[in-house]
Amino acid sequence: MDSDYGIPRELSDLQKLRSLYQPQLPPCLEGTAVRVEFGDTTTSLDPADAHTIARAFPHTFGKPLAHFFRPTAKVPDAQVITEHPAVRVGLVFCGRQSPGGHNVIWGLHKALKIHNPNSTLLGFLGGTQGLFAQKTLEITDDILSTYKNQGGYDLLGRTQDQIRTTEQVQASLAACNDLKLDGLVIIGGVTSNTDAAQLAETFAEAKCPTKVVGVPVTLNGDLKNQFVETNVGFDTICKVNSQLISNVCTDALSAEKYYYFIRLMGRKASHVALECTLQSHPNMVILGEEVAASKLTLFDITKQICDAVQARAEQDKNHGVILLPEGLIESIPEVYALLKEIHSLLRQNVPADKISSQLSPWASALFEFLPLFIRKQLLLHPESDDSAQLSQIETEKLLAHLVENEINMRLKAGTYKGKKFNAICHFFGYQARGSLPSKFDCDYAYVLGHVCYHVLAAGLNGYMATITNLKNPVNKWRCGAAPITAMMTVKRWSQNPNSLSVGKPAIHPATVDLKGKAYELLRQNATRFLLDDIYRNPGPLQFDGPGADAKAVTLCVEDQDYMGRIKKLQEYLDKVRTIVKPGCSQEVLKAALSVMASVTEVLSVMSSSPSPSGAQTL
Amino acid sequence: MDSDYGIPRELSDLQKLRSLYQPQLPPCLEGTAVRVEFGDTTTSLDPADAHTIARAFPHTFGKPLAHFFRPTAKVPDAQVITEHPAVRVGLVFCGRQSPGGHNVIWGLHKALKIHNPNSTLLGFLGGTQGLFAQKTLEITDDILSTYKNQGGYDLLGRTQDQIRTTEQVQASLAACNDLKLDGLVIIGGVTSNTDAAQLAETFAEAKCPTKVVGVPVTLNGDLKNQFVETNVGFDTICKVNSQLISNVCTDALSAEKYYYFIRLMGRKASHVALECTLQSHPNMVILGEEVAASKLTLFDITKQICDAVQARAEQDKNHGVILLPEGLIESIPEVYALLKEIHSLLRQNVPADKISSQLSPWASALFEFLPLFIRKQLLLHPESDDSAQLSQIETEKLLAHLVENEINMRLKAGTYKGKKFNAICHFFGYQARGSLPSKFDCDYAYVLGHVCYHVLAAGLNGYMATITNLKNPVNKWRCGAAPITAMMTVKRWSQNPNSLSVGKPAIHPATVDLKGKAYELLRQNATRFLLDDIYRNPGPLQFDGPGADAKAVTLCVEDQDYMGRIKKLQEYLDKVRTIVKPGCSQEVLKAALSVMASVTEVLSVMSSSPSPSGAQTL
Repeated sequence: MDSDYGIPRELSDLQKLRSLYQPQLPPCLEGTAVRVEFGDTTTSLDPADAHTIARAFPHTFGKPLAHFFRPTAKVPDAQVITEHPAVRVGLVFCGRQSPGGHNVIWGLHKALKIHNPNSTLLGFLGGTQGLFAQKTLEITDDILSTYKNQGGYDLLGRTQDQIRTTEQVQASLAACNDLKLDGLVIIGGVTSNTDAAQLAETFAEAKCPTKVVGVPVTLNGDLKNQFVETNVGFDTICKVNSQLISNVCTDALSAEKYYYFIRLMGRKASHVALECTLQSHPNMVILGEEVAASKLTLFDITKQICDAVQARAEQDKNHGVILLPEGLIESIPEVYALLKEIHSLLRQNVPADKISSQLSPWASALFEFLPLFIRKQLLLHPESDDSAQLSQIETEKLLAHLVENEINMRLKAGTYKGKKFNAICHFFGYQARGSLPSKFDCDYAYVLGHVCYHVLAAGLNGYMATITNLKNPVNKWRCGAAPITAMMTVKRWSQNPNSLSVGKPAIHPATVDLKGKAYELLRQNATRFLLDDIYRNPGPLQFDGPGADAKAVTLCVEDQDYMGRIKKLQEYLDKVRTIVKPGCSQEVLKAALSVMASVTEVLSVMSSSPSPSGAQTL
Repeated sequence: MDSDYGIPRELSDLQKLRSLYQPQLPPCLEGTAVRVEFGDTTTSLDPADAHTIARAFPHTFGKPLAHFFRPTAKVPDAQVITEHPAVRVGLVFCGRQSPGGHNVIWGLHKALKIHNPNSTLLGFLGGTQGLFAQKTLEITDDILSTYKNQGGYDLLGRTQDQIRTTEQVQASLAACNDLKLDGLVIIGGVTSNTDAAQLAETFAEAKCPTKVVGVPVTLNGDLKNQFVETNVGFDTICKVNSQLISNVCTDALSAEKYYYFIRLMGRKASHVALECTLQSHPNMVILGEEVAASKLTLFDITKQICDAVQARAEQDKNHGVILLPEGLIESIPEVYALLKEIHSLLRQNVPADKISSQLSPWASALFEFLPLFIRKQLLLHPESDDSAQLSQIETEKLLAHLVENEINMRLKAGTYKGKKFNAICHFFGYQARGSLPSKFDCDYAYVLGHVCYHVLAAGLNGYMATITNLKNPVNKWRCGAAPITAMMTVKRWSQNPNSLSVGKPAIHPATVDLKGKAYELLRQNATRFLLDDIYRNPGPLQFDGPGADAKAVTLCVEDQDYMGRIKKLQEYLDKVRTIVKPGCSQEVLKAALSVMASVTEVLSVMSSSPSPSGAQTL
């Protein structure tokens, strides 16, 4: 199996041209010396979690942020790293394949060689299994040549998505020791980066010198927090899916007789569905987050879609396009409860055909109400993160089926007067995942690869490479690193009033912020999208000309720049300190004290109230 | 409903750029005067059909070919058309939407206005229904501006795919008379162009002055014959599908654990599947034509795929990509027989749930053997062309299911030693159909629009606009027109030895020629495709740079240029006539007679034997 990894690929003409594309570096990473400045020590988003996380990660929690600058930048207290001994770094593809992953390797390799030609980059073959079995491939310019700016993970492959059991962690420790690695770079999403943090802690505890760095690469776009604006692969996935959704919209408008139900890959969160909606303007999208927030039942959702179909029919429109995130099914409260019962029975090794009879009465009633094909899919074993096998559950067919029944009933009752309802169902996922990466993803991944090197050169362990200010051109990007533990939250849930269970600290998938600007943009346009058919067609992914430099709408409308604000705050605090130095006048000191007293009071109150986008209690 | 047709669209940046693209004209269509030369009168491909077709089309069968030349071209006997009175032309989208359709309108409108600014182009709104109801939109430059080089059929819409019943034909005749049309252009595939020929004949019989012209626009690529090399839309569909297939191949290679079963749109024939295979090099394709030719059963096909999976597993490859044309299901003899029984019962109004019990014993046995979801799909009412609802029958899921069962049996028996077999199924159709057209389709459709005008200016009725030599650059394209009746064949089938049924003459979908060069290319590479994973990734559809000017492999490898050869032959015949003019020497005359005698004898023998790619007897 391994024999195929890293072999040169035959490239098509377009791929050849892409392989010649050279992403730019932001000024802070140019040259051979880099200045690193450590910010304040970090905490967790929800102050209530800090204690639990600190206890689980005694060596790696509460570390400072790191910012990288040009050596010439005027930053006080920054540390200039000029010595670059030869290092050995390992890299593993850990999550699901996401367009751009190869460019992280390229960027890291390039940075290693610029700073010391004797440094070595080892890629683990076959993902985590290669890590456990110490199967490596030394990355060279030659090997990289047919993988630069190309899609897939086929240079190194990937297997399981986790490094979690004691055996897995010990095997990883042994690999890093045996291979004398100075650094281990883990490429993946929320699960993989949580594992990376655990590895870092274990390594620190075991006094293993290998530093662990995580890289946010996941098409789901759900590794999003104060420090991380978007993930490698998300941009490409949304562009390819939007191309197809727009094609379907054009198709709907041409024949005017079909309703297309399109399910989109993206795991629990609905980021892909939201972004594609803002790109393509389909008639409707049902976000899992909306359903969860409003506790909508299957019946509610069906009614909502039927009402939309009816409203359109009244305008003589008998076609439409409806997007559904794959995570929607788990967001529906009664289905979620049913899934929990099923998974619990599966874990007790109850055979699939016996499960129905062992469900609670109302779960059983729901189960029996569902069409046969969905029942089969709900009975599949859960994934490693305990969620259902979302890519296998055809929610689009379920809803199309329920809507068709309801519309037929309304037709009989005379409330619906439109034409016969025809649904066509699609699942867009695998056909986008292997795409050539967009320019943005090529750039983002390549620069992240460079950042990884700097994180390692600064001797940081358990950090994630970060780039912020991404909505601006590359030369404005801010590079840094944040402790992975600072991105963690702790889930609490009560099975009964007497016991509160506390989960392990982890990075949890960020859901769509229903108070955010991207969602607001959707709500503002929802009625026009629904009724006016203002379909937008960004066209196929281009690498030149109009659209080639377009960035995700959700990235551009959100006013993120958290890292920039953290820096700005630091500047203000420093300024106060400079102004109110011992020797200043009594009046100035009094004024400062009075103002700062009220500032700290307000901030304390704000921090102790539950965070709006904090831990979910699902 | 009509209110949406023809309204200006909001275009994305890429679409705006595309709308500015101006296709070139071949030299023969430049300027305002055109020379038309009439070739020999045409016959049908199978001489046995000629009589039947001639009887059905007394006014329109046996007409000569038409070739268009520059007025300065040295062509004896050519007729120069310099007078261009103002004309009124109607245009209707008749078949399914196919990328490029809008450019036929643009090309025709442009040609009309160049030759006489007072000419009028009326688009029928809502396809054939608009034709019957005389709902029109006058095409203007303004209206066209946001539809040039754009996908879909949303400028005019389309509804049913046929103009066939007496009412429909009479309504069309009335529309053409009432609207005083000089010409009616019908855009569509095999069915629509057959209907166009019938309309032309009816109009001629009724002494209606409207001339009918057909245009070969169908993504299926199955309107292929001596005169037509490819169809508008086919190139785009294959490029978009190949992009997605290649993405899936990259995905398969990255995770190395899935078998992807991908069904492709394209109706009965497997042209799309063949072209996509030659573009993307997936591991396997099963063409309907191969299955029909070898009379492979469901069991044979399952075994063939399982053997492939097993051979790959022996090389430690547990992933793969398999393409299936949607027409495959009808090519499997026992399934075809079952479908015929079902359709016959449906036509007798037997309700779907009673059909199983009324099937013949062995059809019933097959039906009961099939999984429930396929049974439901086979029970759907047939399409207007009597074929099953191919887009609704999930052949890919059926085969994945059968292969999984068989592999599990082999696993138990110890003959298969690979990993657990995991299949993921896809249907690629609707998501490609609405795509922005490729450059080739933009050009082809635009030039065909111009040709339509010339056909009408030459006063031809019942012709199809044709362009040949398409694999060469636009300035080498040869423009002409051929009587649609010359593309017809007649199906004959015997229900029992005593009665031979003869079908109505029609253009039948051309199937993949198993003796053709494209298929040969596939066979030569089949083993490497299967075992070596030489996946090729043409990338997303580009409009500039590498790949933008690529043409379909099947178009380029076939040595078609039939029209060029017909012209060449004419030149030889003329030369013989010139050399052997009365007054030439006895020796020359004798030699000519002797040679021509044997030539004619050989050709007669060849023509009377059944044509290799002739009428199918399905």
